[in-house]
Amino acid sequence: MSTQPLTYDQAGVNYDVIDPLKIAAQQAAASTAGQLARHGFSEVAASRGESAYVVDVGPFYLASIVECLGSKSLVADAMAELTGRCFYEAVAQDTIAMAVNDLITVGATPLVVQAYWAAGGSDWFLNADRALALTRGWKAACERCGVSWGGGETPALAGIVETGRIDLAAGCTGIVSPRERLSLGENLQAGDAIVLLASSGIHANGLSLARKLSERLPQGYLTPVNDEGLSFGAALLAPTVLYSPVTEALAQAGVPVHYSVNVTGHGWRKLLRHPGDFTYRVHTVPPVPDVLSFMAREAGHDAREAYATLNMGAGFALFVPADQAERTVTVAQACGIEAWVCGAVEAGTKQLIVEPLDLVWSADDLHVR
Amino acid sequence: MSTQPLTYDQAGVNYDVIDPLKIAAQQAAASTAGQLARHGFSEVAASRGESAYVVDVGPFYLASIVECLGSKSLVADAMAELTGRCFYEAVAQDTIAMAVNDLITVGATPLVVQAYWAAGGSDWFLNADRALALTRGWKAACERCGVSWGGGETPALAGIVETGRIDLAAGCTGIVSPRERLSLGENLQAGDAIVLLASSGIHANGLSLARKLSERLPQGYLTPVNDEGLSFGAALLAPTVLYSPVTEALAQAGVPVHYSVNVTGHGWRKLLRHPGDFTYRVHTVPPVPDVLSFMAREAGHDAREAYATLNMGAGFALFVPADQAERTVTVAQACGIEAWVCGAVEAGTKQLIVEPLDLVWSADDLHVR
Repeated sequence: MSTQPLTYDQAGVNYDVIDPLKIAAQQAAASTAGQLARHGFSEVAASRGESAYVVDVGPFYLASIVECLGSKSLVADAMAELTGRCFYEAVAQDTIAMAVNDLITVGATPLVVQAYWAAGGSDWFLNADRALALTRGWKAACERCGVSWGGGETPALAGIVETGRIDLAAGCTGIVSPRERLSLGENLQAGDAIVLLASSGIHANGLSLARKLSERLPQGYLTPVNDEGLSFGAALLAPTVLYSPVTEALAQAGVPVHYSVNVTGHGWRKLLRHPGDFTYRVHTVPPVPDVLSFMAREAGHDAREAYATLNMGAGFALFVPADQAERTVTVAQACGIEAWVCGAVEAGTKQLIVEPLDLVWSADDLHVR
Repeated sequence: MSTQPLTYDQAGVNYDVIDPLKIAAQQAAASTAGQLARHGFSEVAASRGESAYVVDVGPFYLASIVECLGSKSLVADAMAELTGRCFYEAVAQDTIAMAVNDLITVGATPLVVQAYWAAGGSDWFLNADRALALTRGWKAACERCGVSWGGGETPALAGIVETGRIDLAAGCTGIVSPRERLSLGENLQAGDAIVLLASSGIHANGLSLARKLSERLPQGYLTPVNDEGLSFGAALLAPTVLYSPVTEALAQAGVPVHYSVNVTGHGWRKLLRHPGDFTYRVHTVPPVPDVLSFMAREAGHDAREAYATLNMGAGFALFVPADQAERTVTVAQACGIEAWVCGAVEAGTKQLIVEPLDLVWSADDLHVR
């Protein structure tokens, strides 16, 4: 394999922290783009390394993605053992959210979701309550996002997936239409407002930390995270918010989104994702879900570490023209999702300044590609 | 969940042999189709239960799929231990073939492939030779199919995927363009010819049988399957043929494909997949790859069982107008894939008659949806 740098935009990439396979795979993937010319099409090069891959097919753009839930199902399994409750309706929504919330960042309307449910053996599916909860949650999340559940795979992979476990992933395909909705960052500008959309909790990133933390807690997942006695495990399993209703409603309302970011791994550092040089100045910080303040406290994380790792109440960021900021909030609230005008984009050195917390992150703090 | 029958075409379905989850999931999935109306689109209902899901987006159709390799990587792992050889370049091609060869059955041109490589821990990727072989094979298969490798996921799923193993899957998105290429069976008619395309061996279906068989063989995977001393394991790992070059070349040559079938699980019974009532009369049987005749012999399968389970040399079936049959063979051969005019579609009871083997299968023998 060539060890040349990738040909696409490498802003924010630190090769020292990305494993060699990932580099080789990205190079190999990028080298296949020209294949589309055989069919008269071309890729949108700026989408390589972004959250969804975009191809120009003429009347509109095609966007596609495959995303994995990660290890959140292990928390659902542990909580089922401890409480007898089934949380697979929630993790179904989480899995779809992983794909849909990424797909929409490029301006796409998600249309079709494919299920990938790889179990450690056919026995997994014999627990009918759990299997039907997964199905129910998957269907409800598709309806919430206005996508058709096209089908999928339910392989039993004994010897590959561990007995009693399931590997959950989702494929999502959508289109960017009209073409002006394409949002890969070229429209972001100084003066734009930063609108943050509320998260429901940890979503599906940071679960490895949460699982390790549970081992240190005297009551483990049953430790209460607030005065109402909500357990750590149940709080972790609040399903990820689905943000596509907001981006679709904004498009219908004629609010142009200049850029958007799905706040997943790397917490608020993700706000630095745009490849350009801008300063992001945040003047307002959303309320922090109990489970996240609990985690930060119990893990001994200060604000800097907590915000650099977890979403801390902000699950999705929209960058919109300043005069559309309040309207963006109104549209999100009409979709049942709390939102706040939290800051602004400024010309200047690439950095994120969170004034209420007296914190600053620079470009070097983010390595996500 | 409702226990009502599915609303889409149920020809050939025997609910007794499909697990309850699959039925519930299919019902739930079908019920989400109306969501597309929110965006001004609609599903192609006949594609539900077919090998790829199709949505009408106006100027063309959108087709998408997610497919799993299955357990073939376990054979690659076993052979690596026995011989020191790495077969991940081959299984990469197998994984893409699982998705691409299904997607093309609806008449789609595959455009984008997404990788889903879920390892049992980040250690998996530290074997650089293996990781690079996987990458190299993935890239080559994309190039062979004229698709762009859009990206993907490489999660490390310790606790879900077994240590040292990898769960390989592929998402594929394409379009059906022009719209007349849509091939869901409505054009199949008595008089059409059946053209079979050569397989390279077992492809990626029947591996559970092969793995069990290896345990019974004195030399296991190292048992020779032919006089040249090709080992059972190496023969199993011949990569699946990619058939999209043929379907694309046929479209460019103006050869209309009335229907097509990817011969995977259920072997030749898959030729009965079309929901209509036709008799499929086969007068010519392709040569059987050594590994498949070896398996049938060692497993004690008669011809009926072998052809009902494995592809027996026919990896893909094209149903074309009789006067296009020879041309279809020529086009396939020009793509480097052997092909034969093997039979014809007749009006009559739904059955598959394989004259050279004196075998008949009826509609009741196939339950694939």
